[in-house]
Amino acid sequence: MKVIPGLEGIAVAETDLSLVDGQKGLLLYRGHLVKKLAVSHSFEEVVYLLWMGQLPSEKEREDFQRLLSENRALPEHIYKLIIQISSRADLMTVLRTAISALPLTNDWPPTLEQGAKVLAVIPTMISCWYHQVQGTDIPVIRQDLNHTAHYLYLLKGQEPSEAHVRALNAYLILTAEHGMNASTFAARVVTSTQSDLLSALTAAVGALKGPLHGGAPSEVEEMLDEIRSAESAESWMRARLESGERLMGFGHRVYKTQDPRAQALRQISEELSVEDDWFQLALETEQTALRLLEEYKPGRRLYTNVEFFAAAVLRAVGLPKALYTPTFALSRTAGWCAHIFDQADHNRIIRPQSLYTGTIPQED
Amino acid sequence: MKVIPGLEGIAVAETDLSLVDGQKGLLLYRGHLVKKLAVSHSFEEVVYLLWMGQLPSEKEREDFQRLLSENRALPEHIYKLIIQISSRADLMTVLRTAISALPLTNDWPPTLEQGAKVLAVIPTMISCWYHQVQGTDIPVIRQDLNHTAHYLYLLKGQEPSEAHVRALNAYLILTAEHGMNASTFAARVVTSTQSDLLSALTAAVGALKGPLHGGAPSEVEEMLDEIRSAESAESWMRARLESGERLMGFGHRVYKTQDPRAQALRQISEELSVEDDWFQLALETEQTALRLLEEYKPGRRLYTNVEFFAAAVLRAVGLPKALYTPTFALSRTAGWCAHIFDQADHNRIIRPQSLYTGTIPQED
Repeated sequence: MKVIPGLEGIAVAETDLSLVDGQKGLLLYRGHLVKKLAVSHSFEEVVYLLWMGQLPSEKEREDFQRLLSENRALPEHIYKLIIQISSRADLMTVLRTAISALPLTNDWPPTLEQGAKVLAVIPTMISCWYHQVQGTDIPVIRQDLNHTAHYLYLLKGQEPSEAHVRALNAYLILTAEHGMNASTFAARVVTSTQSDLLSALTAAVGALKGPLHGGAPSEVEEMLDEIRSAESAESWMRARLESGERLMGFGHRVYKTQDPRAQALRQISEELSVEDDWFQLALETEQTALRLLEEYKPGRRLYTNVEFFAAAVLRAVGLPKALYTPTFALSRTAGWCAHIFDQADHNRIIRPQSLYTGTIPQED
Repeated sequence: MKVIPGLEGIAVAETDLSLVDGQKGLLLYRGHLVKKLAVSHSFEEVVYLLWMGQLPSEKEREDFQRLLSENRALPEHIYKLIIQISSRADLMTVLRTAISALPLTNDWPPTLEQGAKVLAVIPTMISCWYHQVQGTDIPVIRQDLNHTAHYLYLLKGQEPSEAHVRALNAYLILTAEHGMNASTFAARVVTSTQSDLLSALTAAVGALKGPLHGGAPSEVEEMLDEIRSAESAESWMRARLESGERLMGFGHRVYKTQDPRAQALRQISEELSVEDDWFQLALETEQTALRLLEEYKPGRRLYTNVEFFAAAVLRAVGLPKALYTPTFALSRTAGWCAHIFDQADHNRIIRPQSLYTGTIPQED
């Protein structure tokens, strides 16, 4: 029996949900280039694409948007639960627990409506934890803003600028789905027993909580925080590279060329750099970093990865670091649900084996 | 790329934790025959064996038992949480949520002490839900009973008979671990991101909740309930078989000979049949069923499986059906934790692939 602890090179599904081609720098959702979707569509439209297989018509878009906006309120007992555990638990633990506690039917197979109800309420959960920890009031739920705008409104208590909505919308789309990563796979394993949507999403949130999976953009932000102005970028990074340290935000396990998500976020950053110094700093720091990496590590072809611009975007729209991984969970819930539906459609229980290395007693 | 949706024939770990040999009817934990452990050791000793790799010394056994018995009380906010959601959620949802909400550090790697704290408190969670639904009072936590006896005490409010403790103890040991099933694998996938113990256990409970995994013994109980007395067993089962239906509790996907867990529970049932009619009914029904199966399906070698005697044991000790799968979760928490520790010891992130079947647009 073959032992493959990381399951490298083993495909567990055939699906048209997404393609991640690291050699070509290609990321597709259902046949669409994600870097184009991110600058031309709303998060809701892309969620619909992932779940239903095609972009919505005008009518479908409105219906889906209404389904999401009408389900933003937290049930009273979930609200109480979050308040009770907020003082002793990090936000990923709160999300895992609050999603697990949602009142949702145990339908099999899981439905788009169930997915929409969870997706709709995650920003409210995050906002509830955030304001509880800050000691501030949660803004009154509104229905007239789209998903991205309402998330920012829930955190700040005021309508966000169009630039911020555009930037965060792109981030949410670009991180909504990325093939068979550990959290997505955990969701599929749970679904394969015909368990319910909440069980699968709870497992996925738990997997994303691990630092090997949900980690990185806050480290980039720390770097930008320390650099502070474009003029000091070169000396700061040169000191890093001289002492043999890595620059955060460059190089990727899968992408051996331009990361298409970084490309899209760079485009957004360029458009918005006149409005926000953080984009300007990120763009200039990137140029300097690429030049220095070519000087210190020639031929290594280290490209800017999505974490680099993600940090710039999340910082520019005003999210505190504690919300980075939870916001990733919010966007990835779109991909998780799409995979849960896909698994349920072609279900086969996922049950690998282990190779026994212990002793075998003689039966008497 | 090879597509293996159920991961059949792929081993994801080398471990001495357990061996399931369906051809030989062999089940081992760390080199020990489980059917012997089940009639000669306490659940706590077997948990220690699974977690530490060897049976405890007298001193280690006492220390481990104390660690478990001192951590039986539920934190006040978990108690409130269970009360709040009990009216609208099934017990597996309650367990998943309450485990997720436990105040536990995020240590990496997960520790035996963390595992013990969760294992110790699960009977209290189950009891809390049970008495809330029944409208009865939760008995006062005690420290002088072992894990199995205390679980029964928490449900009934009085000390259980030795026979009941012996039978349930064997059941808990026999179902504590069974190789790389879907719930255990889900726990390992989550752990592989370096996430915490609670995230992994939450995923496992969610997977066990699925009817393809945590299902069966209550269907056997329904059969025994309908049969009622040994005299009517033959006519009841003959009618079933004549109409082409299956008999629940016979045949197994893995075991093509005697299921060693059924053998051990049969032995217990024989010892206790003088004390409880349910064991007597189960034994006589089994004999009749095997005779009829040989008559109706000759050469199929259908053996009694663990669910058959599990139903008899759980019924005899007085557990209601709603507690069957949660009690399975209680025993399997031992195996889940053992696999979580094992995964953390040799960690490699588990990240398979998918094969894209969609279209690829021409870049413009």
